[in-house]
Amino acid sequence: MNVSRKGLFIVFEGLDGAGTTTQTRLLAARLAQRTPTVMTAATAEPSTGPAGSVIRQVLRHRVRGTDCFGKDKPFDPGALALLFAADRLDHYSCEIEPVLDSGGVAISDRYKLSSLAYQALDVPFEWIASINSLAPEPDLLFFLDVSPEVAWNRVSMNRITRDIFEVPEILRQVHANYNKALERMDRDKVVIIPGETPADSIADIVWHHVAGRIPAAQGGQEPVN
Amino acid sequence: MNVSRKGLFIVFEGLDGAGTTTQTRLLAARLAQRTPTVMTAATAEPSTGPAGSVIRQVLRHRVRGTDCFGKDKPFDPGALALLFAADRLDHYSCEIEPVLDSGGVAISDRYKLSSLAYQALDVPFEWIASINSLAPEPDLLFFLDVSPEVAWNRVSMNRITRDIFEVPEILRQVHANYNKALERMDRDKVVIIPGETPADSIADIVWHHVAGRIPAAQGGQEPVN
Repeated sequence: MNVSRKGLFIVFEGLDGAGTTTQTRLLAARLAQRTPTVMTAATAEPSTGPAGSVIRQVLRHRVRGTDCFGKDKPFDPGALALLFAADRLDHYSCEIEPVLDSGGVAISDRYKLSSLAYQALDVPFEWIASINSLAPEPDLLFFLDVSPEVAWNRVSMNRITRDIFEVPEILRQVHANYNKALERMDRDKVVIIPGETPADSIADIVWHHVAGRIPAAQGGQEPVN
Repeated sequence: MNVSRKGLFIVFEGLDGAGTTTQTRLLAARLAQRTPTVMTAATAEPSTGPAGSVIRQVLRHRVRGTDCFGKDKPFDPGALALLFAADRLDHYSCEIEPVLDSGGVAISDRYKLSSLAYQALDVPFEWIASINSLAPEPDLLFFLDVSPEVAWNRVSMNRITRDIFEVPEILRQVHANYNKALERMDRDKVVIIPGETPADSIADIVWHHVAGRIPAAQGGQEPVN
């Protein structure tokens, strides 16, 4: 769904460890410095909303399935995919759309492609596309393209707790799903950046694509969060 | 999706006030009395699971949308529909499937048709069908058919708090959506009962349809909840 709006909606995507969180922060900081009169909001998925909270508890195995005999069973993967899709619409409605309507820049660390890449491991890719069909497309999507091996090495070094997606064989399938999803996108909106490029250089490439598209300052309110 | 299984999956549907909760309880009680060696589980949607809890808070306006300027906005109706679909798969996986796999009778007070009837007020009917396409069909569905006016009178008399679906004009649209959804079901699985029939007579009609289909006793475990 494409929605007419005044602002600019930017998404970063990539495997775990690709640097989407770092680049979201660097872009938000540069916008705040270079165009301080334009509202900038940096958000992430899973969001901090009610569905996002449940998702994080599932990913960290705090919320599990159980059968009615009290025995643990995996949380249903279709239900998890639907929670991600629910969180996405709530996130868009509460944190992205108001910024765009005010003429600002909304940057999301992960969005629809993360579901197509990760949830399609367990449920059909086309079904994931259909449950996410009401979520509006971003104006610009940066895919930070690291190999599954590099992604695995990065997350293994930096974190103590594992979540359920971070296994090398699985990362290879996730990478293939990302490529499948990217092929379907409007190429004018997608920028693929080799993810092993140093973070500062990636930030410069991102800025090169963003700088000319920043909306004119609207004045008005500052977001509260 | 149809799933081969040993048990019997029964659903009650109808407008608010139609008596689905009463009939679920009456059928469970009669099964416990007449076929005490067959496991019976009576459940409901929204379920008591993690997604169901969020849904109930949304319906009672405890969880709302807000924009990033702190202003209330409605909870996104597409997100709510996805939460219902997520809750349904979690509910099926945790509370219905284990009972059916054990050869028991699972009775759900509301299931997929409730989403087609209620959530399709705000988002496309076909999209609701697609986000619910992974939820297995019941073996037997009882639709307790009361008019929107009778439903409204019953809920107005019995309850202090209103939830967001209980408005007469809306109930007429919900009733039309139920009819649309019923037309697509396998007619062998659907029993439509006039909802103004006395509750005991409805229970007898239900029993007439259920009695011959109860699985043979399997022995084995009792559910813990």
